[in-house]
Amino acid sequence: MTGPTLHGTVPPRIGSLASGARDTICDVPGVTVGHCTLDAGEVQTGVTMVRPHAENLFLWKVPAAVTVLNGMGKSTGLMQIQEMGVLESPIALTQTFAVGIGADALIRLACRENPGLGRDLGPFSPLVFECYDGPLNDVQAPGLTAAHFEAALAAAGTEFEQGSVGAGRGMELFGLKGGIGSASRVVDTDGTAATLGCVVLTNYGMTGCFTLAGHPLGAELAERLRQRAVSREQGSIIMVLATDACLSDRQLRRLSLRAGVGLARTGSFFGHASGDIALAFSTAYRIPHDPGAEMPVVRFLHESRLNPLFHAAAEVTEQAIVNALFRATTVRGFRGHERAAFLELFPDWKELLGLPR
Amino acid sequence: MTGPTLHGTVPPRIGSLASGARDTICDVPGVTVGHCTLDAGEVQTGVTMVRPHAENLFLWKVPAAVTVLNGMGKSTGLMQIQEMGVLESPIALTQTFAVGIGADALIRLACRENPGLGRDLGPFSPLVFECYDGPLNDVQAPGLTAAHFEAALAAAGTEFEQGSVGAGRGMELFGLKGGIGSASRVVDTDGTAATLGCVVLTNYGMTGCFTLAGHPLGAELAERLRQRAVSREQGSIIMVLATDACLSDRQLRRLSLRAGVGLARTGSFFGHASGDIALAFSTAYRIPHDPGAEMPVVRFLHESRLNPLFHAAAEVTEQAIVNALFRATTVRGFRGHERAAFLELFPDWKELLGLPR
Amino acid sequence: MTGPTLHGTVPPRIGSLASGARDTICDVPGVTVGHCTLDAGEVQTGVTMVRPHAENLFLWKVPAAVTVLNGMGKSTGLMQIQEMGVLESPIALTQTFAVGIGADALIRLACRENPGLGRDLGPFSPLVFECYDGPLNDVQAPGLTAAHFEAALAAAGTEFEQGSVGAGRGMELFGLKGGIGSASRVVDTDGTAATLGCVVLTNYGMTGCFTLAGHPLGAELAERLRQRAVSREQGSIIMVLATDACLSDRQLRRLSLRAGVGLARTGSFFGHASGDIALAFSTAYRIPHDPGAEMPVVRFLHESRLNPLFHAAAEVTEQAIVNALFRATTVRGFRGHERAAFLELFPDWKELLGLPR
Amino acid sequence: MTGPTLHGTVPPRIGSLASGARDTICDVPGVTVGHCTLDAGEVQTGVTMVRPHAENLFLWKVPAAVTVLNGMGKSTGLMQIQEMGVLESPIALTQTFAVGIGADALIRLACRENPGLGRDLGPFSPLVFECYDGPLNDVQAPGLTAAHFEAALAAAGTEFEQGSVGAGRGMELFGLKGGIGSASRVVDTDGTAATLGCVVLTNYGMTGCFTLAGHPLGAELAERLRQRAVSREQGSIIMVLATDACLSDRQLRRLSLRAGVGLARTGSFFGHASGDIALAFSTAYRIPHDPGAEMPVVRFLHESRLNPLFHAAAEVTEQAIVNALFRATTVRGFRGHERAAFLELFPDWKELLGLPR
Repeated sequence: MTGPTLHGTVPPRIGSLASGARDTICDVPGVTVGHCTLDAGEVQTGVTMVRPHAENLFLWKVPAAVTVLNGMGKSTGLMQIQEMGVLESPIALTQTFAVGIGADALIRLACRENPGLGRDLGPFSPLVFECYDGPLNDVQAPGLTAAHFEAALAAAGTEFEQGSVGAGRGMELFGLKGGIGSASRVVDTDGTAATLGCVVLTNYGMTGCFTLAGHPLGAELAERLRQRAVSREQGSIIMVLATDACLSDRQLRRLSLRAGVGLARTGSFFGHASGDIALAFSTAYRIPHDPGAEMPVVRFLHESRLNPLFHAAAEVTEQAIVNALFRATTVRGFRGHERAAFLELFPDWKELLGLPR
Repeated sequence: MTGPTLHGTVPPRIGSLASGARDTICDVPGVTVGHCTLDAGEVQTGVTMVRPHAENLFLWKVPAAVTVLNGMGKSTGLMQIQEMGVLESPIALTQTFAVGIGADALIRLACRENPGLGRDLGPFSPLVFECYDGPLNDVQAPGLTAAHFEAALAAAGTEFEQGSVGAGRGMELFGLKGGIGSASRVVDTDGTAATLGCVVLTNYGMTGCFTLAGHPLGAELAERLRQRAVSREQGSIIMVLATDACLSDRQLRRLSLRAGVGLARTGSFFGHASGDIALAFSTAYRIPHDPGAEMPVVRFLHESRLNPLFHAAAEVTEQAIVNALFRATTVRGFRGHERAAFLELFPDWKELLGLPR
Repeated sequence: MTGPTLHGTVPPRIGSLASGARDTICDVPGVTVGHCTLDAGEVQTGVTMVRPHAENLFLWKVPAAVTVLNGMGKSTGLMQIQEMGVLESPIALTQTFAVGIGADALIRLACRENPGLGRDLGPFSPLVFECYDGPLNDVQAPGLTAAHFEAALAAAGTEFEQGSVGAGRGMELFGLKGGIGSASRVVDTDGTAATLGCVVLTNYGMTGCFTLAGHPLGAELAERLRQRAVSREQGSIIMVLATDACLSDRQLRRLSLRAGVGLARTGSFFGHASGDIALAFSTAYRIPHDPGAEMPVVRFLHESRLNPLFHAAAEVTEQAIVNALFRATTVRGFRGHERAAFLELFPDWKELLGLPR
Repeated sequence: MTGPTLHGTVPPRIGSLASGARDTICDVPGVTVGHCTLDAGEVQTGVTMVRPHAENLFLWKVPAAVTVLNGMGKSTGLMQIQEMGVLESPIALTQTFAVGIGADALIRLACRENPGLGRDLGPFSPLVFECYDGPLNDVQAPGLTAAHFEAALAAAGTEFEQGSVGAGRGMELFGLKGGIGSASRVVDTDGTAATLGCVVLTNYGMTGCFTLAGHPLGAELAERLRQRAVSREQGSIIMVLATDACLSDRQLRRLSLRAGVGLARTGSFFGHASGDIALAFSTAYRIPHDPGAEMPVVRFLHESRLNPLFHAAAEVTEQAIVNALFRATTVRGFRGHERAAFLELFPDWKELLGLPR
């Protein structure tokens, strides 16, 4: 993992808004992230988990909403979020063919935490997002099991790695190595500060469209990749937004759409063969599962106060993608396929962007 | 299985339209249905599979669309159908906590049929519908495995049982035993006959709202169930419509909504805790997976010709539900819970409906 | 207008739930309704207005949501409600080709009430629903003007006529005369009573599918209409639900869908050429337009408490439709077309339903 | 109107794809555009019309679809397009409070062309898009009438002005003068060329976010605007895409979303108080209104061939916005408000972008 002490490895700042202390989604109090990475020859894959809070999420759901920019994906659990406006499952990210295994793993974990699940307590809806991590990984290969999902959840904390880790292990980005990225922004809404954090799992991008901080580097990238693989736009991205602002599920839906703005600015055009999905949740209040429990008393942000958050959603998503790019390390996997780290291929990126070294 | 030779066991006819020869979804040429039933003490559950055609469905997709009347459900695979307008997976029906297992089973089956899946061929999107079959079944219990999904698919044929079989094994209906039902209607559109078939997996209904062929029997049902379980409206229903009419995916979406009309007439009000979902597909043409293959040449039905199909969608769904009710047999399962067969509790149903015996 | 003292003119009760005192939408405190009717030879049309509350609705919006069961309609203003979750306009009902005139009239009325509109205050979104009232009315004829919309709004009160009045003047129902209907239900949610009211503008129905309180009367109706016009299913219905329960806009969207359950039970299958639309709003709290005003503090109903309201939505909508049918009087209009009152054609309806006279 | 002979007035090229001959939406054969501009002191507004083809559009509809990125707008006619997948009305663009007048004007025009409209032919659904052109225009002022809509339609041709004309007369863009812009791109799909054209009506943008061809100029713009008005992100944009590629309405919906990618790259984050809407239509085939007419035989583009069109949708929309900016001339209107032309405020734009003069 490259660190900030190395020359030129600090990603460029996107936009004008301030970050939180960590510049990750964990700047939103309570949110944690964990990985389980499989790095074993032709198996280059993994699981990443995002937990909205540390308590029993099934019993204390958080408000949430989804925007599907491109639905050619296999993620599971979105329908119930759209209907109910709440999230009751930790957010699992993984590879395409592991969605069934992941859903089953989350059900088992939830049953362990809530022995009455599906008996006295009603059913549980697992949320598993995916991107396709071929060709670096063999998605058909028996690799991920329930234990890996469990391990990723157990590893969840406020400090976590980015890049070629967890679900991001085998993912790519414009033909370069992609993976997990995160960022945060702090804005003023209504006189009080609100934090917006983001985690992305990136796996998309037509090489020629690669754009870094507004700079079109696609042609240069294509040139430098000539002896390597050239990517067609056919991947996916999962974008998870967390905020401590008090938003309704409808407002969260509006917010989640703006993740697509950040995505668009990196050179994506939401390519055809792609599951481009954004989820937003708020930690400002919780919805009890128990009908007998008291519902929270809420005062939502006035709609006209949303603009700073919309602005931040665009910036934080683009920043998280850029962070994924800068943190990713070169990976070689299935059938010898390789995706190179950006920093390896572009040691001169500052010059290309016209920045001082 | 009660047969038509027994007195009073032929379900009442719903509506005015004619049925196909079998009065099942298999009147739509090419469609087949198979079950795998688990009847083992406290395990009362199963799998039902619907195949749109007998060939490689991943390579030759069928146009399809979905209406989510109530999204509080865990079914998986709908997002991609909504985006792409095609179905590439056999339709699996099962219990809530087996969705992950089912999705994984379908992926494995698809890989066996298409060894390049997820390698050269791109990923595959499994479609698994579910209803919650507690309290008759313990959804937490290890029961269903990939082998059961495989068996249900292998059993698919044009003749299949209805009632307490397959995924319907543990399902209920207004506090009575529910399960799998099917029906068909044949209508004239544009001068040519079109067939519309339906399979339902029923698991819903507030006892007091039970309505049979327009007759409110809820109060009577509540009375007869007094010593038994009384149901709250909190179940689900999956409604699968198949047609040989040449419809676009948008037209299929419009068609699928009308399944809800039939559902409403049985006494459902799309209760809160419920995944009420309708899928419609057409067998009139196929979309090749291979980008190099020639796309079909299609001539859709003129929009104004849809009314007979909309009319049929309402009737065939209500009929399929009624058929599920009449075919269901009493089942006792988890913790001794029992749901009684309608015919057992209402041997006098013809009198209640004012019909001659 | 036929009154309840006449023999057999009291509509049959739908379902099992209790009504409010008036059995109209005005049982929801604050809601008022007004008509302006044009009855002049070939011009048989009008306007109906529903006001959620008596104060400045632009400044004090109410939470609202919409379900479009069938979008082949010309109603305007729905998009903003779906985005913002609030209603800022009185609800105008009228005929298809008067939507533009109505929208303009509402803008002028709103400007009069809020002189800064579109200057300091931001724009205003008018809500105008329509059904097509040909053939009784000539929709092309110059008829309705801004003054009629103004008059309907000025006439709004808690007592209002039903049947062939206001926007309902030229509307039909299964080939019979339709129009405006209203009803209410009172349910227990969470230990406190909630009222759900409904106003419908009915203009739909295939004659052969006519169903009254569960009784299929379509064949009989076709017979009795033989010398008259026979209707094809091509009309529309607008269904407006009001409640004093504290629901979020998402919960109101779920509620609005259930109006379709009541509609389905009358014999509609949401026919093709149709704008079948349901709107639901709550009077439990208000959203200030002014960003500087304090947002309301709300405690929504727990999701699992919605079932009584869903149940009521189905019943109240069916009841409102039946009330429209029973209140409608025969109208003759454009080119001599006529639609007969149900009570005129079915003086023996109680016998047909097996009820004591 | 500044022309290409003047120094530095040729807008920068966006992206890498080729344009059509005109670089406007009229490169799609059959499409025409017309304006009617009101430039009279405090009245600075207008109408722009886009015609998909020159024949009777009600009788020969074109396939169409819509994406609502932000629904805080008053545009009318979208619901029916979403339900039916066709466009039967010329596309009118105007100011917010003229939507009612415009809808009425289109109805009258359609009745003139189709005397049986609303009698034998069924109703007609007008499509009117709007942006809010205050503060340059007084939206409350009596200004636009049916005659202006008629004039704009009559003026439709393959050559048309861009900038501060038609509906764009009073619109702004990041605090600068905005208005009407257009562009085209030609791509290879499936071995044959397809043209994608775009017209935008721009009225959005937070000054500080202004981005030109990837270059963040917001801070500089804010500086130069200091003595002038500073804009908050609260405007709207209408984006109309036309293509001659043979796409289904679902594919057109996917295409329309990608207009948002181009929008995002200019610095928009789909701000809160905004109607950001994209419409896409195809001229490749027509749907007859007459149910007795033969439906077209179509062969849609294979889904995997859509990427070049998605790519083009992003580029052509960004280019059309940039063209609107470069063509717009300074306008002074209501209460002396003024919005300056970009070229006036940024004569040095090439230097800022690092381009040779």
